[in-house]
Amino acid sequence: MSDTLADSRPVVLTGDRPTGPLHLGHFCGSLRSRVTLQHGHDTFVLIADAQALTDNADDPGRITGHVIDLALDYLAVGIDPSLTTICVPSALPALCELTQLFLNLVTVARLERNPTIKDEIQARGFGRDIPAGFLCYPVAQAADIAAFRATLVPVGADQAPMIEQTNAIVRRLNRQVGHALLPEARALIPASGRLPGVDGRAKMSKSQGNALALSATEDEIRAAVRRTDTDPDHLRVGDPGRVEGVVFTYLDAFDPDRDTVAEMKAHYRRGGLGDTVVKGRLEPVLLDLLAPIRASRAAWAHRLDDVRDILRDGTRHARGVTQATLDTVKEALGLYRLAP
Amino acid sequence: MSDTLADSRPVVLTGDRPTGPLHLGHFCGSLRSRVTLQHGHDTFVLIADAQALTDNADDPGRITGHVIDLALDYLAVGIDPSLTTICVPSALPALCELTQLFLNLVTVARLERNPTIKDEIQARGFGRDIPAGFLCYPVAQAADIAAFRATLVPVGADQAPMIEQTNAIVRRLNRQVGHALLPEARALIPASGRLPGVDGRAKMSKSQGNALALSATEDEIRAAVRRTDTDPDHLRVGDPGRVEGVVFTYLDAFDPDRDTVAEMKAHYRRGGLGDTVVKGRLEPVLLDLLAPIRASRAAWAHRLDDVRDILRDGTRHARGVTQATLDTVKEALGLYRLAP
Repeated sequence: MSDTLADSRPVVLTGDRPTGPLHLGHFCGSLRSRVTLQHGHDTFVLIADAQALTDNADDPGRITGHVIDLALDYLAVGIDPSLTTICVPSALPALCELTQLFLNLVTVARLERNPTIKDEIQARGFGRDIPAGFLCYPVAQAADIAAFRATLVPVGADQAPMIEQTNAIVRRLNRQVGHALLPEARALIPASGRLPGVDGRAKMSKSQGNALALSATEDEIRAAVRRTDTDPDHLRVGDPGRVEGVVFTYLDAFDPDRDTVAEMKAHYRRGGLGDTVVKGRLEPVLLDLLAPIRASRAAWAHRLDDVRDILRDGTRHARGVTQATLDTVKEALGLYRLAP
Repeated sequence: MSDTLADSRPVVLTGDRPTGPLHLGHFCGSLRSRVTLQHGHDTFVLIADAQALTDNADDPGRITGHVIDLALDYLAVGIDPSLTTICVPSALPALCELTQLFLNLVTVARLERNPTIKDEIQARGFGRDIPAGFLCYPVAQAADIAAFRATLVPVGADQAPMIEQTNAIVRRLNRQVGHALLPEARALIPASGRLPGVDGRAKMSKSQGNALALSATEDEIRAAVRRTDTDPDHLRVGDPGRVEGVVFTYLDAFDPDRDTVAEMKAHYRRGGLGDTVVKGRLEPVLLDLLAPIRASRAAWAHRLDDVRDILRDGTRHARGVTQATLDTVKEALGLYRLAP
């Protein structure tokens, strides 16, 4: 977080909408890599409350109520506030100012073509009643990325168009001012792909009721494991089985003993390995994975004042960074400067 | 401008895009009434640079270059910085923050239906390439009006939908928070209607080349009067004439001696009054109207540091007012508050 290092190290920006507890899907796809990235990168994590309001305008309290929860999840998984700046965008006016400037650099037609937005509009059933803020949120996200001068943005593959939109705006701005004022960003898409839900559906999601929260109790973990399938078509132990089901996917994602998992997969494919044995392995793997996270979360939950101070300090630091970028952009565009 | 008075006096918000010199059309439709309104109202005037960027993103320097010019025009016509706060919106981050919140309270479909925006999109030939900032500028304007808690907004009749849009957002917000957090605004539409151009076309506009600038020289004024028509179908002095032409419209708008104008109109209608006589009256009326404005403008142009200080001080005052409104809105919505 030191300002001298910030100039030389690549900047990573990530974040989540504070709309509910983080789950294994977040951990696998993003949180785990953030914990690694915070060493050697200048890392910022946004508790994206302003973005969450774009489809929760009727219920801002729901968003606010999850801000501290999200911070607890971050701290619990090992995001270290001495290495990562955790901040709250609704308290960063420079992001709004940069968004307003960026909105002039992108057409409505371009926003309407954004595949992520098209999918999300459909998923939310907005029909014709799309909030303007929702259509524009990729521009706000571009402003976030640009304001922090982020060059690496860990996102799911479905979010790649957001980075393209950011770079389109950045390129237009850079072309206009005649030099590389802002850096382009690169999406860092996890090799592991998306984690399926415990019910086997493609995406783990709280709204689909197939998520295992990072804060899950032991009983909740056991119940989730009971819901998983190894291979529903594997009826007799002696038959060959397929390893593409949820249980092996989770073992691939979370079992630290990769050799044993590889052996089990080979055995299962050949036949002779029972589903109960495989699931029996998954349960302790998940219990072991989540126990320290749950314990750390509980410890932080007893230090809520410290958590609030972390958000305050992180947001203050972020304010300096984002304001500096905004000032640079305004100056390069030649906007009116008030007399000193 | 004092804070105690601000609570009791109605708030008037007006402004202009700094895209060129103000002209007689502005004077007739808006500036004149602002000079009156500044007595007895808490009056704010925006040099709307951020809004002007929504269709000038390629050339921000053009906007910035007109900021001081616009301030000179304001001061020249008698807008008194001790009575009216003149400010620069691009230096008011609370306006952007409120815009971002408001964007979530209006649908894209609603913005696309806005008749003013539809007309302006057509006039600018945007086709499908409408900048997102342009589609959204009524929301930014709503945020301006709301941020200053303006209740009276002097606008042309064509801008009335903008005030409706503002009130729709304000009502939705007030409904959501359960009380009249922000006041609704009323459009103050000049009774005189729109001033035609010197060529007789319905609207005086710099881009149509039919405007007479407030800063026009005597020669420019005389040339403009020569271009005007009294009644193009009035061929013989003795014939009855029509008084709906530009010359009588201008006399109605600017001649302080209304009785004489009424007599001349009656005479012209009867027949027997020559066009040269009527135009001969208009010329000194316009020369007399614009001479003190031009002189005042020239005097202020020698005090540019003072003009810049006026903008700085006005913008500082506006910053306090708009930030206070934003804080109230954020608190009422229950957004996350950073630890002190």
